[in-house]
Amino acid sequence: MLHERNFPFSSLKLLASGRSAGKEIRYEDKTFTVEEATPEAFDDLDIALFSAGATITKTLAPEAAKRGCTVVDNSSAFRMDEDVPLVVPEINAEAVKGHKGIIANPNCSTAITLMGLQPLHEAFGVKRFVACTYQAVSGSGVAGMRELENQLKAWNEGTVSEPENYAHPIAFNLFPHVDVFLDDGYTKEEHKMLNESRKIMSMPTLAASTTCVRVPVMRAHAIAVHAEFERPVDVEIARKAVEAFSGAELCDDPANNVYPTPLQFSGKDKCGVGRIRVDSALDNGLAFFVVGDQLLKGAALNAVQIAEEVVRQGA
Amino acid sequence: MLHERNFPFSSLKLLASGRSAGKEIRYEDKTFTVEEATPEAFDDLDIALFSAGATITKTLAPEAAKRGCTVVDNSSAFRMDEDVPLVVPEINAEAVKGHKGIIANPNCSTAITLMGLQPLHEAFGVKRFVACTYQAVSGSGVAGMRELENQLKAWNEGTVSEPENYAHPIAFNLFPHVDVFLDDGYTKEEHKMLNESRKIMSMPTLAASTTCVRVPVMRAHAIAVHAEFERPVDVEIARKAVEAFSGAELCDDPANNVYPTPLQFSGKDKCGVGRIRVDSALDNGLAFFVVGDQLLKGAALNAVQIAEEVVRQGA
Repeated sequence: MLHERNFPFSSLKLLASGRSAGKEIRYEDKTFTVEEATPEAFDDLDIALFSAGATITKTLAPEAAKRGCTVVDNSSAFRMDEDVPLVVPEINAEAVKGHKGIIANPNCSTAITLMGLQPLHEAFGVKRFVACTYQAVSGSGVAGMRELENQLKAWNEGTVSEPENYAHPIAFNLFPHVDVFLDDGYTKEEHKMLNESRKIMSMPTLAASTTCVRVPVMRAHAIAVHAEFERPVDVEIARKAVEAFSGAELCDDPANNVYPTPLQFSGKDKCGVGRIRVDSALDNGLAFFVVGDQLLKGAALNAVQIAEEVVRQGA
Repeated sequence: MLHERNFPFSSLKLLASGRSAGKEIRYEDKTFTVEEATPEAFDDLDIALFSAGATITKTLAPEAAKRGCTVVDNSSAFRMDEDVPLVVPEINAEAVKGHKGIIANPNCSTAITLMGLQPLHEAFGVKRFVACTYQAVSGSGVAGMRELENQLKAWNEGTVSEPENYAHPIAFNLFPHVDVFLDDGYTKEEHKMLNESRKIMSMPTLAASTTCVRVPVMRAHAIAVHAEFERPVDVEIARKAVEAFSGAELCDDPANNVYPTPLQFSGKDKCGVGRIRVDSALDNGLAFFVVGDQLLKGAALNAVQIAEEVVRQGA
């Protein structure tokens, strides 16, 4: 992503756990040796893109920040921290300015949902929404992808490959279980969609209820959204708002079978928005279907976009 | 299904198009020869289970009814006809009584959704709901199943099998497109879920908005439902209501990874209901996840259950 977007830097350091130290990685025409991510390793750095577990991040990110290095963190460790901006540049780029050394990158389903919701919010003022997700196995990393592949290969050979990464088989199956369950019956993923949307959109009382579902798709998340707005809605105005929004690609011509699908939007920076129609159950309601590559807008792309804002704003 | 439920009959006739006439089919320990479904073929029959396209059904069902044969029809041809009861026996068995020769079997996603919604409606009074479906390829018949299989076999061999039945590849993909699109941007399937729910539940003003999505699952549909009720809701009362409802199986212990999945409910008569929780966006809201074998509760099982009601009520 740094390469693709031609991110400006004079030097690059690759940091990881002690286990990976010494490993060589090629970037453009140079070979880099991975170093251990000690606090001191951040001494001379301006920006660090973190993508580690929440536990290690909670220790290391403040150490990096203390040393004057701005951390863009992909984990959930600091997202809801009052002192940490949670940024989707198309929505709240200005929040970058207030950072105190750490800026958080949001949850993937949240970022993708908002690529459809934000332009409609700007047009009509969102009040509440219901969202049901269709989340790809790559959201669980390489382990999720291997598990789906192994189960499908076993099916093809007439055998069975038992689940290891998930609680249930994922081939020819799906389950309403992404991240862990909390006491109120929601998953952490479902909580993130509500709480992170509120923070990114600066709407602390925004109401949302979501069901997050893992499906046997390799890459790109889809979300069906049914939203209620403050002001009367209009489908044509909604389409134009989506079209004008930099994070979205309007993909909405059902008569010609045009609507976003995961295969179409795998590898694309923009999220596809389609099936825009008046919601038949909510007041001033609109329903739409949004699909985005969660490895891009939901992770690497958004992180680099945040880093670009840090550079651009001199923040 | 007739065999499994030990449906009482003295004689059995298998009718089909002229093309299939003469074909032999074994049922229990007898061999039956398929006959052509002419109007006269219904002369001596009491009950006919129809499962044909809407066009042929529109011609033949009234012919059968005229001859004193009660038709239980699986197509959409007569479902919204005022003179035709649309029946899910767990909900409106008494509607069978008023029939004029034809009784309609509902759309599969609708029947399965209502297996979760009806007990909650009885407890709290439903006002409106948002439902997003995860529909198996067997909903498109054997053509849908073959297409998913062929595409996965091709993937395994490193080749590609082009879509024939669907507008887009279904392996590792999904699309918000089930049945044809209508002028208002909804699909016919989505309209059915609203209109048929209203009719089955005798609630002509019930509000519902749905997104129907085809997913790469072989069998059993899943539906995420977010519903608003007239009266204050309680999760424990909701669980007890589902448990006591004859069409549902409570499958709701997320801490132990217990929630319904398509693989678990394939081949099961009852629909699994789980993930019951207070909805965080709707007033007096509850969210739940329901899964059912659409070839059973959504089709054959419900049709035979209707026929059983015809016998039981002497209707």
